[in-house]
Amino acid sequence: MDPTVFETHPDRYHHWKLSISGDVATLSMAVDADHPHRPGYELKLNSYDLSVDIELADAIQRLRFEHPEVRACIVTADLDRVFCSGANIYMLGLSTHSFKVNFCKFTNETRLYLEDASAHSGLGFVAACKGTTAGGGYELALACDDILLVDDGNSAVSFPETPLLAVLPGTGGLTRLVDKRKVRRDRADVFCTVAEGIKGKRAKDWGLVDALVSRSKWDAEVQAHAKALAAKHAGVAKGPAVKLTPLAPKVTPDAITYRHVAVTVDRDARTAQLVIAGPDAPPPADLAGAGADLWSLRAFRELDDALLRLRFDYPEIGVVTLRTTGDRAHVLAHDVALDKDGTGFAREVRLLQRRVLKRLDNTARSLFAVADTADSNFTGVLLETALAADRFYMLIDGDAKVAVATSPANAGQNPMGSGLSRLEARFYGEPAAVERVLARGADGPIPSEECEALGLATIALDDIDFADELRIAIEERASLSPDALTGMEASLRWVGPETLETKIFGRLSAWQNWIFTRANSTGQSGALTLYGRPERPSFNFTRT
Amino acid sequence: MDPTVFETHPDRYHHWKLSISGDVATLSMAVDADHPHRPGYELKLNSYDLSVDIELADAIQRLRFEHPEVRACIVTADLDRVFCSGANIYMLGLSTHSFKVNFCKFTNETRLYLEDASAHSGLGFVAACKGTTAGGGYELALACDDILLVDDGNSAVSFPETPLLAVLPGTGGLTRLVDKRKVRRDRADVFCTVAEGIKGKRAKDWGLVDALVSRSKWDAEVQAHAKALAAKHAGVAKGPAVKLTPLAPKVTPDAITYRHVAVTVDRDARTAQLVIAGPDAPPPADLAGAGADLWSLRAFRELDDALLRLRFDYPEIGVVTLRTTGDRAHVLAHDVALDKDGTGFAREVRLLQRRVLKRLDNTARSLFAVADTADSNFTGVLLETALAADRFYMLIDGDAKVAVATSPANAGQNPMGSGLSRLEARFYGEPAAVERVLARGADGPIPSEECEALGLATIALDDIDFADELRIAIEERASLSPDALTGMEASLRWVGPETLETKIFGRLSAWQNWIFTRANSTGQSGALTLYGRPERPSFNFTRT
Repeated sequence: MDPTVFETHPDRYHHWKLSISGDVATLSMAVDADHPHRPGYELKLNSYDLSVDIELADAIQRLRFEHPEVRACIVTADLDRVFCSGANIYMLGLSTHSFKVNFCKFTNETRLYLEDASAHSGLGFVAACKGTTAGGGYELALACDDILLVDDGNSAVSFPETPLLAVLPGTGGLTRLVDKRKVRRDRADVFCTVAEGIKGKRAKDWGLVDALVSRSKWDAEVQAHAKALAAKHAGVAKGPAVKLTPLAPKVTPDAITYRHVAVTVDRDARTAQLVIAGPDAPPPADLAGAGADLWSLRAFRELDDALLRLRFDYPEIGVVTLRTTGDRAHVLAHDVALDKDGTGFAREVRLLQRRVLKRLDNTARSLFAVADTADSNFTGVLLETALAADRFYMLIDGDAKVAVATSPANAGQNPMGSGLSRLEARFYGEPAAVERVLARGADGPIPSEECEALGLATIALDDIDFADELRIAIEERASLSPDALTGMEASLRWVGPETLETKIFGRLSAWQNWIFTRANSTGQSGALTLYGRPERPSFNFTRT
Repeated sequence: MDPTVFETHPDRYHHWKLSISGDVATLSMAVDADHPHRPGYELKLNSYDLSVDIELADAIQRLRFEHPEVRACIVTADLDRVFCSGANIYMLGLSTHSFKVNFCKFTNETRLYLEDASAHSGLGFVAACKGTTAGGGYELALACDDILLVDDGNSAVSFPETPLLAVLPGTGGLTRLVDKRKVRRDRADVFCTVAEGIKGKRAKDWGLVDALVSRSKWDAEVQAHAKALAAKHAGVAKGPAVKLTPLAPKVTPDAITYRHVAVTVDRDARTAQLVIAGPDAPPPADLAGAGADLWSLRAFRELDDALLRLRFDYPEIGVVTLRTTGDRAHVLAHDVALDKDGTGFAREVRLLQRRVLKRLDNTARSLFAVADTADSNFTGVLLETALAADRFYMLIDGDAKVAVATSPANAGQNPMGSGLSRLEARFYGEPAAVERVLARGADGPIPSEECEALGLATIALDDIDFADELRIAIEERASLSPDALTGMEASLRWVGPETLETKIFGRLSAWQNWIFTRANSTGQSGALTLYGRPERPSFNFTRT
């Protein structure tokens, strides 16, 4: 199968139209039914698949970097009677379990990016729902700040997943209904079982939408809401604008090579090696002047792309080793410069790094960070990748050159979904240990042996044992059941507090994963399988 | 199949020995291999099944009510080289998915009861692990306050589930490791993949156990730890002792009838009706004088037993309607008396009600509370059952006799697993709505129409529409996929904050449910299926 391409550009969108007028952008869904991600189904009625969501993610990213003047974005549709009818059911029916899970994860991440932009980047979203807003369509609306529904006696918001498909609204819908919008849970229960959804005054009264607008006032009201949202964000520093240039990795069957990031896979061993090279030089005085070539931006966009390709195109790879190379001083200089720079651009780079690191946390592969050469460079924001990993193997070398180093990137700038920094998660309930690491890190690189004493290294060994220990650990890990590992890793990685985000990935997605494997949805007579056919699904009614 | 019997008594235990000496009890696991819950497997090496856990739950309950003098309990084993080897794998291999899930839920609830007794009842637990402490055996230890491991060069604690069985330690183990004991998550990752476990100094250093004790000092040290724990709880009010008399329900294929609680099932419709009758009279001045016949205690023990029977013996029942009957004033008088009574006994009754209500929250059936007669009695602690339900249907009668009433039981005495009261969960993020209900409730019963306005009723209708609406809602609900409903209900019921408890039921259990359905564990060549046989499991290594 051809590699999945996650890079796109508004000039090449098939499914969305992006237009900008002053501080308001309009992102209009106009799904081209004839351009699905894979052949085999049509994207009717503004239903979406991965290709539609890749474009949405691209549009949000570009608004943040390329159009800092935009402070509100209207998410709407180009069809008259349909806002969005959700994820395409035929696509789901044709997909493997692994693809379904990764598709849902990607759409969940993208929905969270809307909320992240609103919370941190001065970019709010108005969902302008002029027509049917069903399933994933309503979930998209729920990720916006403000939901407008047309009051035409017909248009409804709905979650038909449970009654029609025997699955969940799994893109954060259940969680956002009650936790974000605070819809009463008994009303949410009714809403989620009424396939036709809820419209008009009741939708407003129950808190399912923020405003009902007649067709005659529609355009004016949508603009007014967007303008109000933009005004709310007027105080946020923005820009300068930076164009996101193509990454254009070189992709072969067993390698993905970018400027700073390289992935090599060993299919027989079910392992991959991911290497991130640090910058060649200190950052320029004017960070934005470097544009998309700024290492802090480019390397993390590459890492993001690499993680997505690993997830979708290399499902058999179970263990990923993470290595870093280069000059510690240059990473540190980049982290410090980003931290000190008060521009909107620098903030966007920091937020992008944060999102990519969360994408790493959310990647269901065993992650082993490895520092085994003097060139190893787990410094600052790159140290976060080691702290995201399930284990961190460090070689104790005679010269104490193998070391890690801290930067402002480790001191709260990159919270996980739980809200904890990765150091806080590592030393959960032990704030003194976090302080110890940060205080020691201020004095310079921390060699392996000291990393072990401080609790940063999982395993630190000298070169008599190191290579064998690591090799055996990787082989053993790659031999274990991938399902048990996914559940285990998900349970251990998110120690501590839960948030809407961890609930979506940790609880809602886990239930959906389970439900997707049940015959009632995906069996021969399951509701998802039979959707659109004349046969009615037949259920095994045994309750768990 | 014979009905499952959840009532037992120390005189009839097959698997545990309970002894008491002063303020220290010893609960010694001595599993009788020849008395499994169902025929088909042997309970070797102190492995457990439902029958073992039913006795454990009974023992903890009796210590709380019948032996208030006890302030510490040693949980240990009667075997020399094995503490407990966890849930019996052959039993799991023979069980249906529904049974496995419900078995895990029951064991999870029981582990939480140990922690609840320690936190609220002045009853701490010492896990005295003199030998192999594996899987569910270590999970039992993790639920104790203090874990002692013998330092004999051999005995280890371990979670072999992932490496040997391709499943998770699903009885809270993963969550308690990192969230309760704060074992570093990268070390937890290592621990959970090393089948033979970790022993000696490393077990102590990593925080897996609290103390290492040599064989020669074992008995003395265990006693010393128990005495220290008992002393810690010396200030907690205890007693008077009350004997828990048998409930002895009348069980027929379609009905379970207790003194105050009655369940009738309609197998064809896949529905059950559960009716709780309020007390016949106000409570006596001396609550403990009524003993186990006190309505507040007896009715909730009955409800607990009924819920367990529904879960295990009626898996095909999808919708349970909850009704209440009797005199509101009597329930209110009981709730008020319990609230004012400072004895340990009254506290235990309140805590038992709280646990039973949580068992209701955790019951994976659609719960519709119904108030449709003037005799309806959703008062105080019984109103909690309506608030636990997914929906609350109320008839609007001409005389406004159908009503609910509040008591101290609704004002924080019965938090859900999330820590929120059920009113707080219903009105999540709207504390003023909670206050409105409690303030209004202080003035007397709240008729249906007002309940609707206050947000207590989900659906309130007059008698022209009520019966049809309810009938259709039940029929529709019973026609939906039970899997999607379980996931949906789990997502909506636990709105708001997450705790160790909600993580265990909401996240860990969801992952385990999924993993249990995967061929890698339970397929023909799955690791759980092949456990103990010469064949090696074969895995599909596709990662999600």
